[in-house]
Amino acid sequence: MRIQGKHYETIRIETSGTPAVSIIDQTGLPFAFRLRTLRSFDEVFSAIRDMRVRGAPLIGVAAACGIWLGLEETPSGSDLKDTVRSLCERMGKARPTAVNLHCAVKKMETFLGNTETLAGAREMALTFAENLKRSEISACRAIGKHGFPLIKEIAEKKKGAPVNILTHCNAGWLACVDWGTATAPVYKAHREGIPVHVWVDETRPRLQGSRLTAFELKEEGVPHTVITDNAGGHLMQHGMVDIVLVGSDRTTRCGDVCNKIGTYLKALAAYDNHVPFYAALPVSSIDTDLCDGAAEIPIEERGGDEVIFAEGKGGRIRLLAEGSPVANFGFDVTPARLVTGLITEYGICRAEKAEILRLLQKGEE
Amino acid sequence: MRIQGKHYETIRIETSGTPAVSIIDQTGLPFAFRLRTLRSFDEVFSAIRDMRVRGAPLIGVAAACGIWLGLEETPSGSDLKDTVRSLCERMGKARPTAVNLHCAVKKMETFLGNTETLAGAREMALTFAENLKRSEISACRAIGKHGFPLIKEIAEKKKGAPVNILTHCNAGWLACVDWGTATAPVYKAHREGIPVHVWVDETRPRLQGSRLTAFELKEEGVPHTVITDNAGGHLMQHGMVDIVLVGSDRTTRCGDVCNKIGTYLKALAAYDNHVPFYAALPVSSIDTDLCDGAAEIPIEERGGDEVIFAEGKGGRIRLLAEGSPVANFGFDVTPARLVTGLITEYGICRAEKAEILRLLQKGEE
Repeated sequence: MRIQGKHYETIRIETSGTPAVSIIDQTGLPFAFRLRTLRSFDEVFSAIRDMRVRGAPLIGVAAACGIWLGLEETPSGSDLKDTVRSLCERMGKARPTAVNLHCAVKKMETFLGNTETLAGAREMALTFAENLKRSEISACRAIGKHGFPLIKEIAEKKKGAPVNILTHCNAGWLACVDWGTATAPVYKAHREGIPVHVWVDETRPRLQGSRLTAFELKEEGVPHTVITDNAGGHLMQHGMVDIVLVGSDRTTRCGDVCNKIGTYLKALAAYDNHVPFYAALPVSSIDTDLCDGAAEIPIEERGGDEVIFAEGKGGRIRLLAEGSPVANFGFDVTPARLVTGLITEYGICRAEKAEILRLLQKGEE
Repeated sequence: MRIQGKHYETIRIETSGTPAVSIIDQTGLPFAFRLRTLRSFDEVFSAIRDMRVRGAPLIGVAAACGIWLGLEETPSGSDLKDTVRSLCERMGKARPTAVNLHCAVKKMETFLGNTETLAGAREMALTFAENLKRSEISACRAIGKHGFPLIKEIAEKKKGAPVNILTHCNAGWLACVDWGTATAPVYKAHREGIPVHVWVDETRPRLQGSRLTAFELKEEGVPHTVITDNAGGHLMQHGMVDIVLVGSDRTTRCGDVCNKIGTYLKALAAYDNHVPFYAALPVSSIDTDLCDGAAEIPIEERGGDEVIFAEGKGGRIRLLAEGSPVANFGFDVTPARLVTGLITEYGICRAEKAEILRLLQKGEE
């Protein structure tokens, strides 16, 4: 990822000097680009809770870093088992519904069970955090590599005209450590000199599209246009979208894709207009326990203030009068029948049980 | 329509005393309810141009009123033909793309050609404006009457549970003189004691849903919930919508419906979930010259500021950083195959050429 022409990652682990973690503070984006150094467990915890870092993969890495800092702060002589348990338990509460956070914390707790000394635990925690970070980056890079041919093929058919990609929400590097998921094939194509243009759904209510994805694309120099969430169907009807690429928060073994609210509407429009619709995701987000996403995945209902108010440069304003109730559903489920394919770090597969299980098996071999 | 418990119309023609027109100033809604008295052609012209009055049917009536006031201001001895031509020509420019405005102005010009005296023209202009207003109200009331059984039937099946209606944008009384189009069956059902609940799409970028439709429903005492435009598909997947009712800016003889951007996405979701999808419209909005809406109807591209900025209580804020281009399409076309039916003042018909032409013929008999 590039910001103001310089290479960054959303999180950096500082081991020379005082142990610390430096992050891009996402609460100021896109209007202010601020780096922030976190020097303690509590500072990392607050950064996750206050969404200074956000995005499932990034939160997992940040949590691991926080636990490492917690161990660095722990005075020698403390009970190690108690300390690890308490740090992991506390960190798990930073964002109650974040699956990656809980996954990372749980794995780390098990991993740290293999040492008896505080010094050993500190070293292992650092190793765990660094490995998790590295594996998130390489998964995203591999998603980019596997998704790239889809864009290249369209570019060849279009003979030099830009490939029009529509995306929803932010499945970019800001949500990950680098590359992003849905954006990885786009950045790869752009760097390979293939002309691309991205339609960015603004993504109400939190506007992750216009605030975050547009920021990323602008900094990377990728041509793009921000549109309202209402516009994608019209664009597809008129041949102005060649492919839809979105992320996924949770994918069932049968290929149903749970992603930011509104994704399903874009999948319907893509299907109706014969536009390929792909979800890009690390295999860790595939939940093999589930099949029928719409029936089995509980959808988070968030506070109404996100719908009632809008925030931006100039403050916070009220959009509707008092006295009208609002509802704010965070995600929806796109049924597998509307999904052309899944792009993962192991390769691409159809959104279909047998293929998904085969891919997971192949990847583990 | 009721506001603060009192009956209103969006426009009132004042003939006792100084000729004037009084309107609800829609620019302040939903935060400030202001009536405004317009006493001259220029004041009406500005009110239309600045969108103090908006909505296709209402603009037509307001334009007619403005021309009447223009004739009242005309000194005797003026050349009548020249005056009428000039007033009509000027009024036609208040909103360049408003079809109803041009239609009303054209009809009025022809109608006023039947008199030779200024006094006669004044009287005829007033008659024309009053008749147009009356016919808009009765068309909307008839739409309500014809649409009502659709809601009633669902209510009977649901045995007393509220009928959940989803609507997009504002096709309510604020866009008309009274009743509205898509809202007319809802208000009728509510007054008949049938329990209804309306999901109101906020309708980015101009937020006519959260600003205007929610205001109307609140004032009428109709239970409703404002949602983002992204949410409707999820609701329909979970059986939380019984019927979709929208307006139409232009309908082709083959039944394609051009309406506010995003309508097409809701129609796709309704179709995918077997939810009936109806457009409510006066027959005057059926354009028998057109068949294939997506191919033949030019879609207005509006200024990007509507996407970049948001306005509300607390001012105007910028939602995305500078440097990202935006696009702002005003309308989209829902193909007839996704439309369950059209609700008009002549009755309901399927969105299909033979039925539409039969309905138009029957209505004219």
